[in-house]
Amino acid sequence: MNFIKRIFTYTIIIGLILMLNNICIAQKANDPLPSWNETKHKKDIIAFVEQVTKEDSPNFIPVAERIATFDNDGTLWSEQPLYFQYYFCFDRIKALAPQHPEWKTKEPFASVLKGNIDSVMAGGINAIMEIFIAPHTGLTTDQYEKSARNWIDTARNPVTKKLYSEMVYQPMLELLKYLRSNGFKTFIVSGGDIDFMRPWTEKVYGIPPEQVIGSTVKMKFELRNDTALIIGQQKINFIDDNEGKPICIQANIGRRPIFSCGNSDGDLQMMQWTSTGKGLRFCLYVHHTDAFREWAYDRKSQIGQLDKGLDQAAIKGWTVIDMKNDWKIIYPSEKK
Amino acid sequence: MNFIKRIFTYTIIIGLILMLNNICIAQKANDPLPSWNETKHKKDIIAFVEQVTKEDSPNFIPVAERIATFDNDGTLWSEQPLYFQYYFCFDRIKALAPQHPEWKTKEPFASVLKGNIDSVMAGGINAIMEIFIAPHTGLTTDQYEKSARNWIDTARNPVTKKLYSEMVYQPMLELLKYLRSNGFKTFIVSGGDIDFMRPWTEKVYGIPPEQVIGSTVKMKFELRNDTALIIGQQKINFIDDNEGKPICIQANIGRRPIFSCGNSDGDLQMMQWTSTGKGLRFCLYVHHTDAFREWAYDRKSQIGQLDKGLDQAAIKGWTVIDMKNDWKIIYPSEKK
Repeated sequence: MNFIKRIFTYTIIIGLILMLNNICIAQKANDPLPSWNETKHKKDIIAFVEQVTKEDSPNFIPVAERIATFDNDGTLWSEQPLYFQYYFCFDRIKALAPQHPEWKTKEPFASVLKGNIDSVMAGGINAIMEIFIAPHTGLTTDQYEKSARNWIDTARNPVTKKLYSEMVYQPMLELLKYLRSNGFKTFIVSGGDIDFMRPWTEKVYGIPPEQVIGSTVKMKFELRNDTALIIGQQKINFIDDNEGKPICIQANIGRRPIFSCGNSDGDLQMMQWTSTGKGLRFCLYVHHTDAFREWAYDRKSQIGQLDKGLDQAAIKGWTVIDMKNDWKIIYPSEKK
Repeated sequence: MNFIKRIFTYTIIIGLILMLNNICIAQKANDPLPSWNETKHKKDIIAFVEQVTKEDSPNFIPVAERIATFDNDGTLWSEQPLYFQYYFCFDRIKALAPQHPEWKTKEPFASVLKGNIDSVMAGGINAIMEIFIAPHTGLTTDQYEKSARNWIDTARNPVTKKLYSEMVYQPMLELLKYLRSNGFKTFIVSGGDIDFMRPWTEKVYGIPPEQVIGSTVKMKFELRNDTALIIGQQKINFIDDNEGKPICIQANIGRRPIFSCGNSDGDLQMMQWTSTGKGLRFCLYVHHTDAFREWAYDRKSQIGQLDKGLDQAAIKGWTVIDMKNDWKIIYPSEKK
């Protein structure tokens, strides 16, 4: 009798364990942000989305107004040891060099061709602008697009040796998807070149070209052999950074975002534009705190400096993601 | 017996008539373009949409690439006796005049305040640009938006006495809806002011602000009492007309449209950009041929001149809608 009782008790215990396990699996399957640790930040994101999407909530926001804007470099993918687009520009300048014999002696091109990055960077913003423009000049939009697509498919980061498209943040991919599944329209608003990003953002982030906003060079329309072409000119049109970000958001979207993500002082004005609109808003800074799995930098970094933004986030109560503690994994390749 | 036979025959005939009637009603209910006459043009539009949307068609185009761009003035709504935005600008200048005593003696404002439109127009493009900019200068985007929204809700066309939003073309509303129901993303690409259109395009055309492209004034970001604002500056940023249209399409959408509609020479480069992409494309010009129900004008008109475009349409085989013969009704108010 005692034996039967024991068998019975064990059966019930095993049953309970199996049930509990099933509940855990179900919960995990329903978790929209599985790569995020269960911190306050994750809960705050989910609470915000629930508040603006529940029709009976006092903070309900209609689908049409659910605009979410994301910086790219350092927010959706890494940006070290240099903004990835710089490497693209260096590679393009090397490829185009035979057509530009003058580059051998002309800075910043001469330093690029010698692979002397420190010397390129010493040229400051003017050197960087020249490098930004060079891969466009005289090329049709189709030609430039092809060059960006080829590069993203093959080029690798000098430190991690990964493809650049493998250096996107898995937790942010989940956040983008989570927002879209709740009726948000997700946009990229980056200081990077709009034409450099568009060829691959749909595949990598699920964001189509028409929802990518970025810096631009001047363009010219031309009919060549009866075919309409758009040709890149040797001149910057607009830099989508700092004050430029809200101005580009207004020009391209025409609504204030209700959700914005960034990682640097260049995103501060976008945060201010987002947070001071009417109704509930969410601003999120990604703080690079993980020197082991990614990089750790903020107030004094040359790349992605986060100084004023960190102060403002504290004052305004914006969410500051601590990469090391908030994210279970960084890159998609770490998924089990 | 003869009597019964006759009753039987009549019953069959009545039955057949009823059946035929039902078929006609069903056909009408399924007609995506009920305000279009059954001409070649209507059939060509439907044939195009069927070819690019059927998955087994050699001309199939994936949903993501189904970009359709529409001019606004003269294509989606009327533009006579003057572009409607001019009337908005005149009204705004009158409303703002107390804050600008200098306008009493300064052209083109003095002529606007006197209601002397001929004299305003005699000032040419420079006068028009000043009038275009004035309602923006020093205003926040919210203030300008409110002024445009109020105006569209109340102002009436001097000839028809209709609200301007009642002067949209019913056949084009149907075309927009038909394209969207077939996976197309519909954009406005207008020479008009982007901020003038956005407050009402969603309600009137079903086109959200982020799918409206137009001319722009320079904007400035400002923090006032800790609130982020964007303020209109006294300077044109970009005129979205002629070559400007494909350049704006590239900057804002980043894909070539596969379907474009316009009504003037200002749309020609948009048509060229659309038609010379790879794959099946559709270009449609609205030809204003109906002096009785709307207006009749083309090669020599000051407003919406269609001269080179008409020649190019003939050479390239683009569809030219003959308003008088192709459209059953013009405005939604004519619907039975």
